[in-house]
Amino acid sequence: MKIIVDAFGGDNAPLEIIKGCAEATKELDIDIMLTGDEQEIRRVAKENEISLDRITIADAPDVITMEDSAGDIMKSKSNSSMAVGLKKLAADEGDAFLSAGNSGALVVGATMIVKRIKGVKRVAFAPVMPKDKGFFMLIDSGANVDCKPEMLRQFGVMASIYVEKVMGVKNPRVGLANVGVEDHKGGELQHAAFALLKDSPINFIGNIEARDIPFDAADVVVADGFTGNCILKLYEGVAMVMMGKIKKIFKKSVKNTIAASLIMKDLKGLKKEMDYNEYGGAPIMGAAKPVFKAHGSSKAKTIKSALRLTKAYVEGNVVQEIADSIQALKGDSEE
Amino acid sequence: MKIIVDAFGGDNAPLEIIKGCAEATKELDIDIMLTGDEQEIRRVAKENEISLDRITIADAPDVITMEDSAGDIMKSKSNSSMAVGLKKLAADEGDAFLSAGNSGALVVGATMIVKRIKGVKRVAFAPVMPKDKGFFMLIDSGANVDCKPEMLRQFGVMASIYVEKVMGVKNPRVGLANVGVEDHKGGELQHAAFALLKDSPINFIGNIEARDIPFDAADVVVADGFTGNCILKLYEGVAMVMMGKIKKIFKKSVKNTIAASLIMKDLKGLKKEMDYNEYGGAPIMGAAKPVFKAHGSSKAKTIKSALRLTKAYVEGNVVQEIADSIQALKGDSEE
Repeated sequence: MKIIVDAFGGDNAPLEIIKGCAEATKELDIDIMLTGDEQEIRRVAKENEISLDRITIADAPDVITMEDSAGDIMKSKSNSSMAVGLKKLAADEGDAFLSAGNSGALVVGATMIVKRIKGVKRVAFAPVMPKDKGFFMLIDSGANVDCKPEMLRQFGVMASIYVEKVMGVKNPRVGLANVGVEDHKGGELQHAAFALLKDSPINFIGNIEARDIPFDAADVVVADGFTGNCILKLYEGVAMVMMGKIKKIFKKSVKNTIAASLIMKDLKGLKKEMDYNEYGGAPIMGAAKPVFKAHGSSKAKTIKSALRLTKAYVEGNVVQEIADSIQALKGDSEE
Repeated sequence: MKIIVDAFGGDNAPLEIIKGCAEATKELDIDIMLTGDEQEIRRVAKENEISLDRITIADAPDVITMEDSAGDIMKSKSNSSMAVGLKKLAADEGDAFLSAGNSGALVVGATMIVKRIKGVKRVAFAPVMPKDKGFFMLIDSGANVDCKPEMLRQFGVMASIYVEKVMGVKNPRVGLANVGVEDHKGGELQHAAFALLKDSPINFIGNIEARDIPFDAADVVVADGFTGNCILKLYEGVAMVMMGKIKKIFKKSVKNTIAASLIMKDLKGLKKEMDYNEYGGAPIMGAAKPVFKAHGSSKAKTIKSALRLTKAYVEGNVVQEIADSIQALKGDSEE
């Protein structure tokens, strides 16, 4: 298996990306194709004594930054490490593509270059997030601000397959993010999506309230991209504010600092538990070949775990499974 | 000033409601009219030696429970403590109405019985919530699942007046909840609402991301009721999960339990800081007279602080200020 990796995406590129890939080739028994400035990749590898065994390089001089708009991947940045990686994937020169770069550009690039699975109305950004115990997949969390009911149904079907095949959850519970648990809750979009999800070959458990998401409401949370994005970011914001407040308590007095020293290790574990970056990233669900987003702040270890998930994404035959399930859905309107 | 209070709303009614009211009459120099089963109110007051000085009672045999649907306030529960209270307010027998009961019923009742301020398209449920330092008002947090852009503008105007007059924030910063901070972010609703809010006599600071809400993004966060409800409930959910995880850490070992005992007081303070119930409640913004919702779990102390806010709501002349500002808004479409 060969995974194409954007060597210049994310805050710690290219060093941590190259390092993570080099470790992954051995541990996961995969080949890697790095995209990016070849000279620079070779220089960084040499300087840090990283072996490029089982790693090839596809030269791509440009880099998409966080300041670029998503559309630039098709225009001024068509020679970027991300665009070249997606083109190599589309040309079947690899089995999957991984990037820690600009999420918006990756969604646009996946749609325009790799294309969607036949019948899939929109690709969705679907991070795996922590909850009280374990994780859940939030789909869509920002790729599609305005959604139609059929899109929400497809999100539920796609995420259900991914969570089962890649994350190993049997018969995952799929819930619709809503303002209450009763069937009739929500607006027009939720009413129509509820009916469609109920009529789908998934374990749809109905509406779930935002309050219950961090507990154990569902394994897959379906939302339009606007709502999903608010959930994703508020989740992070509240957790950060609380960790900050706890830190302040620990610095408040000598007594408190002593207490802190006793439990520091466990508290760091808590921080890690509530950090969605720890889960390695988010697939771009619905793309015709596996495209995976690692978090922008990824270091070598996170890149390696993202590569492990990307490998499972390929081996689980997720794209084909989605294609079959989408074909089998009845009543989808033609676009 | 006379404030009408629903003696049978909330988990701790009627005892804690009566107790809170009795204390408030003295501390806040107000008169109270309690609505509810008169015999029962007198019995509970006598049994607990609570003076009913400055408190009158309007007999209302029924109670709206959390299981009743919002519409029942106009039908089978039109003789409930909540419905009678709202009718007394509409008939000018008091200056404001306070209830710790069913929020949905209170929104419907305020709209149908007290009516809206002239020109106000919808009343909004607007809780005051904690952030890293201080608070913000979230409007709408669930009264209107489907919103039009003009409604979001009115929400911003109404909350801005309340936060300035009642909470004492000068020139409050009003932000629009969105998926990014750039002006063009969001869907159709946000685009149109952004333009209207920008053209309003408030301190509109533009779009804010959900991640920044718990920090210090704005004093007023404007959202449609669906998004606002998700924000409200997820806020609570994430905070609860984190507090639960911290508790678990403290029970993990003897060493940790010792650490916990050292900082327990400060941690309880943190829990209180992140608990939106502590802020006393939520006005029903846009009602033609002040209607205020105290949290369902309110005890006497919270009822007293809610009465303090309700008094400020009346004294700040908020309803008249809103009426004037709504009249002055240009370009509002007629319904």
